[in-house]
Amino acid sequence: MTLLNDIAGRYPQAVSFAAGRPYEGFYDTSSLPRQLRAFEEHLAKEAGLSPDDVRRTFFQYGRTKGVIHELIARHLELDEALTVDTESIVVTTGAQEAMVLVLRALRRDTQDVVLAAAPAYVGFLGATRLVDMSVRPVREGQGGIDLDDLTVQIRRARQEGLRPRACYVVPDFANPSGATMSLEDRQRLVDLAEQEDILLLEDNPYAFFHGGSLRLPTLKALDRSRRVVYFGSFSKTAYAGARIGYVVADQPVTRDGFGAVLFADQLARLKSMLTLNTSTVAQAAIGGFLVENGCSMERATRRVAAVYRRNLGAVLDGLEERFGSRSGFRPANAVSWNSPSGGMFVVVTLPFVADDAALERSAAEFGVLWTPMHHFYGGAAGFHQIRLSFSVLTPEQITEGLDRLASFAATGPRLDP
Amino acid sequence: MTLLNDIAGRYPQAVSFAAGRPYEGFYDTSSLPRQLRAFEEHLAKEAGLSPDDVRRTFFQYGRTKGVIHELIARHLELDEALTVDTESIVVTTGAQEAMVLVLRALRRDTQDVVLAAAPAYVGFLGATRLVDMSVRPVREGQGGIDLDDLTVQIRRARQEGLRPRACYVVPDFANPSGATMSLEDRQRLVDLAEQEDILLLEDNPYAFFHGGSLRLPTLKALDRSRRVVYFGSFSKTAYAGARIGYVVADQPVTRDGFGAVLFADQLARLKSMLTLNTSTVAQAAIGGFLVENGCSMERATRRVAAVYRRNLGAVLDGLEERFGSRSGFRPANAVSWNSPSGGMFVVVTLPFVADDAALERSAAEFGVLWTPMHHFYGGAAGFHQIRLSFSVLTPEQITEGLDRLASFAATGPRLDP
Repeated sequence: MTLLNDIAGRYPQAVSFAAGRPYEGFYDTSSLPRQLRAFEEHLAKEAGLSPDDVRRTFFQYGRTKGVIHELIARHLELDEALTVDTESIVVTTGAQEAMVLVLRALRRDTQDVVLAAAPAYVGFLGATRLVDMSVRPVREGQGGIDLDDLTVQIRRARQEGLRPRACYVVPDFANPSGATMSLEDRQRLVDLAEQEDILLLEDNPYAFFHGGSLRLPTLKALDRSRRVVYFGSFSKTAYAGARIGYVVADQPVTRDGFGAVLFADQLARLKSMLTLNTSTVAQAAIGGFLVENGCSMERATRRVAAVYRRNLGAVLDGLEERFGSRSGFRPANAVSWNSPSGGMFVVVTLPFVADDAALERSAAEFGVLWTPMHHFYGGAAGFHQIRLSFSVLTPEQITEGLDRLASFAATGPRLDP
Repeated sequence: MTLLNDIAGRYPQAVSFAAGRPYEGFYDTSSLPRQLRAFEEHLAKEAGLSPDDVRRTFFQYGRTKGVIHELIARHLELDEALTVDTESIVVTTGAQEAMVLVLRALRRDTQDVVLAAAPAYVGFLGATRLVDMSVRPVREGQGGIDLDDLTVQIRRARQEGLRPRACYVVPDFANPSGATMSLEDRQRLVDLAEQEDILLLEDNPYAFFHGGSLRLPTLKALDRSRRVVYFGSFSKTAYAGARIGYVVADQPVTRDGFGAVLFADQLARLKSMLTLNTSTVAQAAIGGFLVENGCSMERATRRVAAVYRRNLGAVLDGLEERFGSRSGFRPANAVSWNSPSGGMFVVVTLPFVADDAALERSAAEFGVLWTPMHHFYGGAAGFHQIRLSFSVLTPEQITEGLDRLASFAATGPRLDP
């Protein structure tokens, strides 16, 4: 992604559909002291801590599994109808640290591999590289991960002498594809994990940014046999800078000298070697955010979800206007796109190669940036696809950006002499 | 350490020389809003950021290498007479994350090993386990790491076909031994690193807690050939909960496709796969702490350093009174101890095995806790030694605790039937 940042830096006037950053319009530094105080009061009044213990919670080395686990459990109950053992929650330095911990725990040697839909979130691929764990790609369609191909890939890996330990899935509005799994597929996936004896690593950063339709249950809510390890993040729902995420890991595992413990305890032991505990100051800030919103992130994200919904509509309508069957764009239907029902991303397919060189040309000659999809396929596919991210744009910028994109698309591939 | 926490939990009335936690008497939650505001003003006035960029710094995904690097550079200039390139600083989730990043970067395969004085800080040993890197122990004396043995161990490792990449050192008041290196040894160590082509990983969490004597220069200050990677931590100087540390890594390295970059940039790339960036809220809190103290941690730690100095004196005087040659303790000189010139730890040698079973007896029958030193030797040595930590105790607790320790020591080893 360094190359993409470099291009973005060289064309500051370009409209950028490349930045996947959350919307910034509601940031307010005066919220921090208020939320820290709200968490302090929560500790004193609700949790019944002494003044010394309150101060200790803010400043001293803390509980490895975190100090806002009870507030997180309340949020999961309220917003996801998920009842979890608070001891199965590990609060982490963003969901990214949670992924690293889980993969590090699952990877005993090079025979242990993990599966993921291709295209995949680059942060997950980065975590696998950090712990030297191989990823086996699984096909993805409009409805998310292809379950038949998942079975094929699991069995193929086993035939090669490998141990497929888990499959990484983003069931709602995946990054980068925007795909959402049907209820039927969610149920089938949970059953498949049980049959094939693998874990599911469910990542759920975008669920509240639905297009207004009924939300489907998480995999964790359908999980009857503790097959699902659930990653949560406050980066999109509160703010990313805090770096507060968590993992729910309620699987029973055996730990030498301790007998049966929760997978969360095994993760905590690894965390004690990695970051000791998640910043208490950052936990307190997010804890106060939760308290202020009665632990409902659905409620907390209402304003920003409306922004994303408006922008998603503007992008989809704008694409139809410029490239749809009645748009006059020639050749007709040469440009296609998916229609996610929520989230922060739309994928557009172009009739020519849209790689880093094409992006450079798009930026220099047309003033519009986007992300080449091949980066999410590890460079193995997606060469005609681009990801449009619209989270930080205004409707006016979207209009202007799509006009520029249409001009770029109309020029077709540049033929080098 | 779980076992030790367990014992501590079962004997809440015991005087604990086991807890290595920082002193808690100056914690004050009202400092947080004030320090956040101080950092905000610093960004606006000194760094010249626009209001939007200030808000972005607090809430958005941030610079991988951190946002308080310039304040840290000022602190190093002021307190350590160290002039460092601000681009060589990576702000991390405590020094613990910095250790993991550095070791992960140095470990290409199982041939890469790291050296460390035994006994060693358990956090460092944990980081090596997390990245699957072998540690070669080096002898330690009253003056810190034994340089002759270091040369022997480096050469022995090479003879075994291994690649010794670095040696981990705490030159001032090491944890657990309390040992401090002489100026001459510091110079020799830096030269030796150059001759033997290894890096030095210098960890410096306790330097301000000197006994009032002149401070010696850090290894980094003596480093003329960029052999020293320097770990800094605000856990003992500000507060541990924030989880803010950093690494200075100004070594030139080659990175594929980027030519020569700083080692810090290679670490940042790994960090982008581990935690993305260090919590901006926590960085802002510590940034404000630095601003309030004019970036001098020597000044910021004056009060707490006086507490540690008083307690170190109370422990050393108390040991002399109870076990010294004129104390009447029999057999005379059976109990010995070192005399660190600062820091948070004293090591006592007992005339019998002081392991976890002895600790249990000490807790149950005498009401005093300490840490068996064999834990810091990976269970290979130190069976007659105990670490006394005095950072959270009052002088009265120290007196009472040492009385109890004397009673325990007087009973000698328990002979099982």
